Amino acid sequence: MNSSEFRRRGKEMVDFVADYLEGIEGRQVYPDVEPGYLRPLIPTTAPEEPDTFEDILNDVEKIIMPGAASPACTELETVMMDWLGKMLKLPEAFLAGQVGEGGGVIQGSASEATLVALLAARTKVVRRLQAASPGLTQGAIMEKLVAYSSDQAHSSVERAGLIGGVKIKAIPSDGKFAMRASALQEALERDKAEGLIPFFVVATLGTTSCCSFDNLLEVGPICTKEDVWLHIDAAYAGSSFICPEFRHLLNGVEFADSFNFNPHKWLLVNFDCSAMWVKKRTDLIGAFKLDPLYLKHGHQDSGLITDYRHWQLPLGRRFRSLKMWFVFRMYGVKGLQAYIRKHVRLAHEFEHLVHQDPRFEICAEVTLGLVCFRLKGSNKLNEDLLERINSAKKIHLVPCHLRDKFVLRLAICARTVESAHVRQAWKHIQQLATDVLRAEKD
Amino acid sequence: MNSSEFRRRGKEMVDFVADYLEGIEGRQVYPDVEPGYLRPLIPTTAPEEPDTFEDILNDVEKIIMPGAASPACTELETVMMDWLGKMLKLPEAFLAGQVGEGGGVIQGSASEATLVALLAARTKVVRRLQAASPGLTQGAIMEKLVAYSSDQAHSSVERAGLIGGVKIKAIPSDGKFAMRASALQEALERDKAEGLIPFFVVATLGTTSCCSFDNLLEVGPICTKEDVWLHIDAAYAGSSFICPEFRHLLNGVEFADSFNFNPHKWLLVNFDCSAMWVKKRTDLIGAFKLDPLYLKHGHQDSGLITDYRHWQLPLGRRFRSLKMWFVFRMYGVKGLQAYIRKHVRLAHEFEHLVHQDPRFEICAEVTLGLVCFRLKGSNKLNEDLLERINSAKKIHLVPCHLRDKFVLRLAICARTVESAHVRQAWKHIQQLATDVLRAEKD
Repeated sequence: MNSSEFRRRGKEMVDFVADYLEGIEGRQVYPDVEPGYLRPLIPTTAPEEPDTFEDILNDVEKIIMPGAASPACTELETVMMDWLGKMLKLPEAFLAGQVGEGGGVIQGSASEATLVALLAARTKVVRRLQAASPGLTQGAIMEKLVAYSSDQAHSSVERAGLIGGVKIKAIPSDGKFAMRASALQEALERDKAEGLIPFFVVATLGTTSCCSFDNLLEVGPICTKEDVWLHIDAAYAGSSFICPEFRHLLNGVEFADSFNFNPHKWLLVNFDCSAMWVKKRTDLIGAFKLDPLYLKHGHQDSGLITDYRHWQLPLGRRFRSLKMWFVFRMYGVKGLQAYIRKHVRLAHEFEHLVHQDPRFEICAEVTLGLVCFRLKGSNKLNEDLLERINSAKKIHLVPCHLRDKFVLRLAICARTVESAHVRQAWKHIQQLATDVLRAEKD
Repeated sequence: MNSSEFRRRGKEMVDFVADYLEGIEGRQVYPDVEPGYLRPLIPTTAPEEPDTFEDILNDVEKIIMPGAASPACTELETVMMDWLGKMLKLPEAFLAGQVGEGGGVIQGSASEATLVALLAARTKVVRRLQAASPGLTQGAIMEKLVAYSSDQAHSSVERAGLIGGVKIKAIPSDGKFAMRASALQEALERDKAEGLIPFFVVATLGTTSCCSFDNLLEVGPICTKEDVWLHIDAAYAGSSFICPEFRHLLNGVEFADSFNFNPHKWLLVNFDCSAMWVKKRTDLIGAFKLDPLYLKHGHQDSGLITDYRHWQLPLGRRFRSLKMWFVFRMYGVKGLQAYIRKHVRLAHEFEHLVHQDPRFEICAEVTLGLVCFRLKGSNKLNEDLLERINSAKKIHLVPCHLRDKFVLRLAICARTVESAHVRQAWKHIQQLATDVLRAEKD
């Protein structure tokens, strides 16, 4: 949607809201629809080609308004998470469908998804061990629980461990910054020998530092064999899996109990929208379910409905699936794929430019939209370069450490980025590199 | 703002966004401002009288845009939480000010605020006990920790205990559904005698069931004496404390370590916006702080800035203080007070109507906007009445249990509610009561 269409459509939406408020007394306070009303009104998959804005807005009036906030808010979310799951070609087990045991939920952030998965895994292992040995207290079990992630995992994994009151151990990653079978198996054996209880592994697809990928096809079977919950955090990279050429990066997801990525990072859905799927929704519900009378409703025990409050940390919820519905339909799957591909192409364009300048080196494989690079030379040199880049305020880079190297990261992530911006950024970086190298010699 | 002004202003905002996006390449990628830039540009308290929309929008351009998303997002939040804290006449210790040790943060829901407080309290007590007895493991301590709330507290308190891995005990409330000193002290003594470690008390101001108030002036000193973290959950009732005539309900807040209420419930700020204050922000930060390189920034250790990511469960944040700023200025404190007062007046009007019909009884003191009532007679009779009310779909009521009684709850909560709506609802209820009583006789 270009700027002039945005002005027109935005103003129509303002009128839509004002009309609604003016006519609100004529509306019923409670919907007439029955649970499950929405799914049959909506296609089972996202459209390949874009829909028109008129079509979408007409559907809001026809499909959403009769279901008001509830149950429309819940039901659209379930269907949108199925749409998105199918776009990623997630195994059937993760979809809700009409009769599935899995399903998706929108969380606020990947941090919350990781925490929710960890808590569900904790509850599951505590119950299993207490069933086997009824005398065991929760405290005695929790003290022995250990969760694992690669040493490249996001800090939110360590944080989830802090909050959940369990140990988190970092598995040394390999030369490509990936968690591999051998290192994980070694840690598990050592900890089991010490009487600890491994219960949770987070595999990262697309690490924050350098967009490396844990080896799911190695790690997955170990988790299955050891009866350990496997959670996949693909916060950034997940969006790319809608493209067939990147879907192989997700191979092994079939071993996971839960999977999460953030459409708000790279799929044009505004913040916040963190998409999480589980294979067995009873595992999540088991960790959180409490049913006071003021939250009871007639369909509670019918098995027909989804109570998302048992899937998450907060009780209240916003209607976040609406923005997914709008984006998926306005772009179509093809439009979203084209968006991802353009960013990856621009990242490779930047990578190519870096390769042509012998003063620089690429520090990690460029798979998606992130390029890790540095001046050959000391960390000090690269810290100085970063300082100059960020002080100039023409572009903004966030660094990382890869092992003992201080590394610069160029992320392609703006909606309107073009090749010209990339070339301009590189020219700017080259100029500042010349300055910093000259200053070093002086 | 009436509907026609909303149409005009809404469309201006659409143009504002489109203009911004069209001109984005001309803007700097990183702001020039220094930490702390915003506070001096904004008054120290909310205005008593409404500001004009033009003034607010001009201030967005003048005050927010130069600070971009960061640090404006953080700094406006700190100042807005100070404004709101002053509106409630919170003790100075809860305010951030320029040099305070306390301060406020916007959480997504009261559930999250309770959980964050419980986790901070847990970390604090674990560290204290480990400092005294270095051999103690976290697991050994957690197994003995006990948190308390009244038997009328919201289910999210029990849920916070589940998530935090600690015991939660319900303190029997008194005849007015309030937690009192004697019952709490008794539970604490009994648990301490059994070797347990009381560490956290949640006092509720305005319970979900019947809007009862725990006795803070009794409970507070006990918590101080026992060195137990006191968290106050005033999710609904908190908004009323901006009126001097209701502020006494908050007396005793000076004993609390943390306090929370939801402006999204009753202060005209859209969902989600849950306002939480702490006396010592280092207590919160201590529970969550992790600092990976990719989240480092130059001002990190300056002591000048607030890193809200250490105050909450998610890492990412939305710019939720903007809506507080708009609402506080568009209504002014007087406008917000008038809004609260109108709702309370309408609740009393409904209470008065109920009193005049001898078939009905009022079941709990009406203090704010909630009226708990029922037909004199069996629970079955009242369940039938509720069923008829909610099936008719003219109004919608959510019930509760008060002890063994099934009770109907009428909540005054819509922005545009008037006396005519209340009288119409009552007439409708009376009619359905007549039907249900006749059906019972047949």
